Amino acid sequence: MEAMNEYNHPPFNLATTNATHSQVVPITLFVAVLCLCLVIGHLLNENRWINESITAIIIGCIVGTIILCISKWRSSHLLRFNEELFFIYLLPPIIFNAGFQVKKKQFFQNFFPIMLFGVAGVFISTSIVAAGCWWLFPKFGLNGLTISEYLSMMVFQILRLFLLSNATKSAVTITSWDSILTAITALRDFFIGIGTIFSSTDTVCTLQRSKLQVLHQDETPLLYSLVFGEGVVNDATSVVLFNAVRKINGDTFRGKAVLHILLDFLYLFSTSTLLGVTAGLVTSYILRGLGFGRHSSVREISLMILIAYLSYMLAELFELSGILTVFFTGVLMSHYAWHNVTESSRITTRHTFAAMSFIAETFIFLYVGMDALDYEKWKLNLLSFWKSIGVYGTVMFLILLGRAAFVFPLSIMSNYMHKGGEGSSKITVNHQVVIWWAGLMRGAVSVALAFKQFTHSGVTLDPTNATMITTTIVIVLFSTIVFGFLTKPLISCLLPNHTTNNGITRRSTSPKEELTLPLLSFEESASENLSRAKENLSMLMEQPVYTIHSYWRRFDDSYMRPIFGGPRSNEISS
Amino acid sequence: MEAMNEYNHPPFNLATTNATHSQVVPITLFVAVLCLCLVIGHLLNENRWINESITAIIIGCIVGTIILCISKWRSSHLLRFNEELFFIYLLPPIIFNAGFQVKKKQFFQNFFPIMLFGVAGVFISTSIVAAGCWWLFPKFGLNGLTISEYLSMMVFQILRLFLLSNATKSAVTITSWDSILTAITALRDFFIGIGTIFSSTDTVCTLQRSKLQVLHQDETPLLYSLVFGEGVVNDATSVVLFNAVRKINGDTFRGKAVLHILLDFLYLFSTSTLLGVTAGLVTSYILRGLGFGRHSSVREISLMILIAYLSYMLAELFELSGILTVFFTGVLMSHYAWHNVTESSRITTRHTFAAMSFIAETFIFLYVGMDALDYEKWKLNLLSFWKSIGVYGTVMFLILLGRAAFVFPLSIMSNYMHKGGEGSSKITVNHQVVIWWAGLMRGAVSVALAFKQFTHSGVTLDPTNATMITTTIVIVLFSTIVFGFLTKPLISCLLPNHTTNNGITRRSTSPKEELTLPLLSFEESASENLSRAKENLSMLMEQPVYTIHSYWRRFDDSYMRPIFGGPRSNEISS
Repeated sequence: MEAMNEYNHPPFNLATTNATHSQVVPITLFVAVLCLCLVIGHLLNENRWINESITAIIIGCIVGTIILCISKWRSSHLLRFNEELFFIYLLPPIIFNAGFQVKKKQFFQNFFPIMLFGVAGVFISTSIVAAGCWWLFPKFGLNGLTISEYLSMMVFQILRLFLLSNATKSAVTITSWDSILTAITALRDFFIGIGTIFSSTDTVCTLQRSKLQVLHQDETPLLYSLVFGEGVVNDATSVVLFNAVRKINGDTFRGKAVLHILLDFLYLFSTSTLLGVTAGLVTSYILRGLGFGRHSSVREISLMILIAYLSYMLAELFELSGILTVFFTGVLMSHYAWHNVTESSRITTRHTFAAMSFIAETFIFLYVGMDALDYEKWKLNLLSFWKSIGVYGTVMFLILLGRAAFVFPLSIMSNYMHKGGEGSSKITVNHQVVIWWAGLMRGAVSVALAFKQFTHSGVTLDPTNATMITTTIVIVLFSTIVFGFLTKPLISCLLPNHTTNNGITRRSTSPKEELTLPLLSFEESASENLSRAKENLSMLMEQPVYTIHSYWRRFDDSYMRPIFGGPRSNEISS
Repeated sequence: MEAMNEYNHPPFNLATTNATHSQVVPITLFVAVLCLCLVIGHLLNENRWINESITAIIIGCIVGTIILCISKWRSSHLLRFNEELFFIYLLPPIIFNAGFQVKKKQFFQNFFPIMLFGVAGVFISTSIVAAGCWWLFPKFGLNGLTISEYLSMMVFQILRLFLLSNATKSAVTITSWDSILTAITALRDFFIGIGTIFSSTDTVCTLQRSKLQVLHQDETPLLYSLVFGEGVVNDATSVVLFNAVRKINGDTFRGKAVLHILLDFLYLFSTSTLLGVTAGLVTSYILRGLGFGRHSSVREISLMILIAYLSYMLAELFELSGILTVFFTGVLMSHYAWHNVTESSRITTRHTFAAMSFIAETFIFLYVGMDALDYEKWKLNLLSFWKSIGVYGTVMFLILLGRAAFVFPLSIMSNYMHKGGEGSSKITVNHQVVIWWAGLMRGAVSVALAFKQFTHSGVTLDPTNATMITTTIVIVLFSTIVFGFLTKPLISCLLPNHTTNNGITRRSTSPKEELTLPLLSFEESASENLSRAKENLSMLMEQPVYTIHSYWRRFDDSYMRPIFGGPRSNEISS
């Protein structure tokens, strides 16, 4: 009778069809833990110190410990950290939702300071962190940063790199020219790697921070759009920075390098934005032109979700910034497409996108918590306890410094350029501190980048790489938990009356504009147009951003909305 | 200068982080094609012959052809067919949405005929298709069905199987007893595999059919709940049938086998249902008890989605019927949990679940269309053109026969048992034809099962297996396209006035019950309860189902709704 069991024809069994798959157990556990997170996060909602991301990280740590015990110190993982999962499935809904829910007016009125922070900020911060790491890490014995054979040439090469960049033509003659250049490239890649991991603001974290507890879009619109916009823009900057630096070799790294980087950035920024805008407009046009709502709102909702995702994937395919693209798709969809769908679709999309984003965020924080307990990586860490503390402290300090180095000067610069406008448009010192603080958290994006840079599909055997990953995890845990704990008290100290809609935070809606613009319409007479144009021309001298915005609104009302949908200003007022 | 490029340190590049992954291209294309499907499906919505699934399959075929041409006859695949993807990600939202949107009253009032069709139907249909295949396939030269060494014993073994099942004790003595039993098992598995692939109703297909064009829940509630309920129940039956048949070996296959199968079925059915009900009640309790809506409806929506998915995964983990479980989770959630959430969450969940289900369905049909053009499988097909046609025709005929063999007798039986009730509760001959027809389509579930049974992770090298897969694909394409084309005309011919809400289809809402039950409440006096109990007792004799339903509603109002939420009947009337 035993022979029957020995016969290993794959059993045709609907139940075991799935149960035998290795994925069922981890997915089940993960979903269960997510549910738990949700409920506990809700229960702790009223708490002054705790927030949703801290809850998720702590629960992740606890679950990781339990799994570690059950698996007898083998693994704390339910799922291996997968950058693919992260970049393909979890990041797009978060960014799309951010674009969909953002207050467009405030965002675009603060466009200039946002760009300043997002572009110049990353450059400054990256160079400070990279240089700081290069200078301080060897002091903690963390020398094996690159492949050992290039190490001896390190100091010389760095010197040479500086020489090359400073002198128009260097007269240095070395026999092993190629190997040195290779080493330079490797080193530069590595340090810029560290620099960006620890310097670029974590979009997800910032959103989490700016959305859930610190900054409320309605209460502090200026701060919100600055902190939040910076996070979106600096993703594009990071992409450019890496591509640009990698392209420039020793020879060309002389005069036109900065111009190259700038042009590259402009190209990437404009194409990514254009793709996002196109996707949003196409959706609006289809929804308006074909009248989906007549039959079912299900098709409308599906189409919006699918095209939004498509825009992200297309951007990734063309090596653009998917984050920037999907952000603008979200903005355009909420500006046009959202007005072409049925009432129930509007409610549904608003809440669905928020829920998808919420689940993705919780998932990421949970995962980071679980990943912190990976025994393998800690075992490979070569440094002693105190030296490790030294490295962590150094990185933490460099992050604080790197961010301070651009937030405060750039704020002052932004204030100076806005001097012609209203006094209230200035970024006060308290606001500067909030902006500095809000971008300090490092989270899932940092972890994903670290895994991408320092491991091969989640596994590392090199001690230096393991050290870098554990450092990243410590920084993420520390910044999320400690800075997270302190954020609410800090905000309520710096912005004591920020819940009362005070004048400072509402400056972005100029009363005059509010009154005149809703009355503008396609049908308005030519003479009115002319006089308004004159008026606007004089405004352009004083408040360039406002005037651009008012021109845009007129263009929008006259040409865009009739084609792509959405209420025209005169329709609102009627 | 070339050395720099030779250095193969993994480039730290945010853009190529994702673009280098192999998944980006297929996902992008797939999402783009999905969008196309959606728009074209909408444009053809008014068409009498075409429906959404036909559109998706045809577009899939076209895209498959294009990919085949581009890849120079190598592959028509964007993604390899993955049963995991199908069972873990695509099926749950479809079934959950079905449970969430189903009219609970009609479904449970027709519970008896649904069970009859779902349970007895699968047994009858499977045996007819399996026996038919076993008898007819060798005539087309399709002999290599099992591993070659067992083939010579085939006829003898089958004879023996029948001997064993008929005689109480067989006196046959054969030396190679074990190998024959093994062969019998393999054969039985194989034929029952064929049987179920081609006999169990395709849940997704039936839903698609019953939802989008043929049967409208509001217009023909009886037909809808029969066709639809059968699809849900027969998944559980299939699971049981396979487990049961595989457990029974030659020795025990005598007297108690049927009882065993029955008990197994009852166990599986009850545990799966219980799990689903528990998940639904837990959600309701959490949502009610913790008052999620006070803070955000995002958490409510997330929690509902997550727990629904969790229930499916738990069922799969415990080797129960995930389809049955998630269906009942959906039913319970719409009965209780849905009433505990905010107004916007209600609208959102209804539409979101429908949209998720819609995307999953379109995805599946699109995939089936693409998969039809897999060159590899067609190349391995050993049969000549005419013999292939013969095999396809045979299977098609057996499907028609197998379904007819239980729909008509069971309908008559169901009518006979309902004789005591109202005359209009009978399933008319026209309705029987519709039920028969509606279950004929074979779709994605059949393809998934065939791939599971006859390939190893999407690849087959055995010609017989390749033949079985191409047969499945031909059957799916033929039944979806040809039967699909004919369905709308057939329905409008058989049910000429089914859009006019005629009396036959509305019989399930007995006017009396409608009037009395909403007035029942927890607070009603004991004497009223007593008199009603007597009344109901007499009703029990005549209309058992109605009375059970009315008892349930009273229990629901008194005990369940106060705990788990939802409006009590008296609250509705007030």
